[in-house]
Formats: sequence, C-alpha cells, structure tokens
Amino acid sequence: MQGKIHVYTGNGKGKTTAAIGLAIRAVGAGFRVFFGQFIKGREYSEIKVLDSLDQIELKQYGRGCFIRNQPTAEDIAAARKGLREMGEILKSGDYQLVVLDEANIAVYYKLFSVEELLDVIKNRADHVEVVITGRKAEQKLIEEADLVTRMEEIKHYYQQGLAARTGIEK
Amino acid sequence: MQGKIHVYTGNGKGKTTAAIGLAIRAVGAGFRVFFGQFIKGREYSEIKVLDSLDQIELKQYGRGCFIRNQPTAEDIAAARKGLREMGEILKSGDYQLVVLDEANIAVYYKLFSVEELLDVIKNRADHVEVVITGRKAEQKLIEEADLVTRMEEIKHYYQQGLAARTGIEK
Repeated sequence: MQGKIHVYTGNGKGKTTAAIGLAIRAVGAGFRVFFGQFIKGREYSEIKVLDSLDQIELKQYGRGCFIRNQPTAEDIAAARKGLREMGEILKSGDYQLVVLDEANIAVYYKLFSVEELLDVIKNRADHVEVVITGRKAEQKLIEEADLVTRMEEIKHYYQQGLAARTGIEK
Repeated sequence: MQGKIHVYTGNGKGKTTAAIGLAIRAVGAGFRVFFGQFIKGREYSEIKVLDSLDQIELKQYGRGCFIRNQPTAEDIAAARKGLREMGEILKSGDYQLVVLDEANIAVYYKLFSVEELLDVIKNRADHVEVVITGRKAEQKLIEEADLVTRMEEIKHYYQQGLAARTGIEK
C-alpha cells in the first residue's frame, strides 16, 4: 500500500512530540524509522532515547536556532545537504517511516523551496510513510498531504514568561 | 518549581503521540514517567517500546474501545479504579511526568466527572508535570490547565475510508 504523507503544523505545542510518538509506535510494530531534523542542532533530551533504539536512525541538519536572526550561508548549506540526503533515504525505501522535522520552517526561511521538498517526497519508494512538521506549512504541501493536523495554541505558559525547560520543551 | 498541566485535545491526529513524545523527551532528561491510559485496553504498537524503557511505567485502565456503544459497568469500574490509582501516583511525587491518556474521553462518557479528575490533579505533589489527552476536553479543565493545544483535523485519510493501520494508528 502507498505510504501516506502527514503534516503537523500550527503554532501550538505538540508537533515534534507527535512525530516522536509516531516513531515510537512504528518501532513497536517492527518498522525502521529515519528521523531527520532541520534547523535543530542542539542536544534535545529526546535524542538520547531515540538514538538508543536500534530501529531509529536520527540525524540533524542544522546548527541550532537562528530563528531570531537571518539564516547564514552555513544554515542554508546544512539544510540543503539534509534535503539531498533525505531524498536518497526516501527513494531507497530502507525506512518505512521517514520524519522531516521542522521542514516547514526550513521552507519558510527559504533554506529550500516547497517545490524541492515536494520533489523528494513524491520520489519516495511507494510504501514509505512521511511525516513533516513545523509551523507555517505551505498550502502546496497541505494540498499534497493525506493527513494534516493543525496544532492550535489555546493557552501556553510561555505567555506567562516561563522559559523552555529540559525534559519538557527540550 | 510547580509542575504544569498540559491538555492535548481536538479531533485531529497527534494527541496520544504527542504525549508519547513528551514521555520520551522526559526519559531523555532522566525523569521517571507514569503513562496511564483510560478506555484503551488493546495492544497498541507503542506499548512494547514504552514498556521496554526502565524509566516508564505504563498501565491501562480500560477494556478496549466501547466508543460505538455505551460503556458498561465494567468499563466504569476500570476507569474509576484507574483514576484512584493515578491519584495516589500523582500525590506520591514518584514520577516527574504523569500522563492521563484519554482522560477527556473518560469524562465525556461520564466514567468519572471533570471535578473528580481535577481533584486528583490538584492534589498532586507540587513538582509533578501532568499531561491529559483526548477529544472534547471540558471547559473547566481548560481553565485550570497551563498549556492547551487543540489538534485540529484539517485533512485525514480516514475520510478516504482507510482503516487504522498497525505501526501508524495503533
């Protein structure tokens, strides 16, 4: 059966964690998972656990958070290398589930275009299930996706000035 | 610091998977996690993986899905026993993160009341972070929560008649 395309977007908390949960569920079913992260380069707490599982391959294609600044040539190069590598992985069919974490943000900051993202997704091996996360998903991606959830922030303690905490946000 | 109350609700895919992702992140930070599931009693794929992690305790307080029927006395008893047990766990402070998966659905089907749910949450040890999932979160719970994300279904392949698949939905 054709693998589906999932998109988790919106400004609420739960996009990357939902992708992690999907990865864990897939592992429980005996699948192999490739979890690629754009933008991110820091050590998030979840990385140790995902890395410790034989069936999950995790790789980061970012240098950390540039969100408050403009992306540099290095940021762009890292993301484009990531998209190329993930294109090969998607085409190979070696992993039944492939996550492109924060790919929407990479598109939003023009590290690569939504057309380039769609190309690598469309050229995947038929059975591969794809998960794309990040705020501000492009309409073109939403149109191509089979499943789209928008995480809407109803309330967030960031509004109360609480910074990101290890083990909960990072 | 006071642990926060998270609510993941709405009709979109990603609520339980977000809770699983939070559990994995917390484990990566060295936390102990209690993952309690109401309603659910079947073997979901993720259970094997969560159970295999020393820092996660997982328990189900349901007999499977009654969603298309009315809950029986047994369903109610299982949920109420779960809420009692989780009340003790929340009060003990032994786990830094406690997930009450599908507790909103248990309230919706009147297995217990939202006031009973709020009681066990409010009586938790101060530092415990709490995660509640399920569609149809009650307004009273949303008011008490520190973080609320509504997962909105923009598109779902269920609409195309695709049944739940092992490794992706279960």
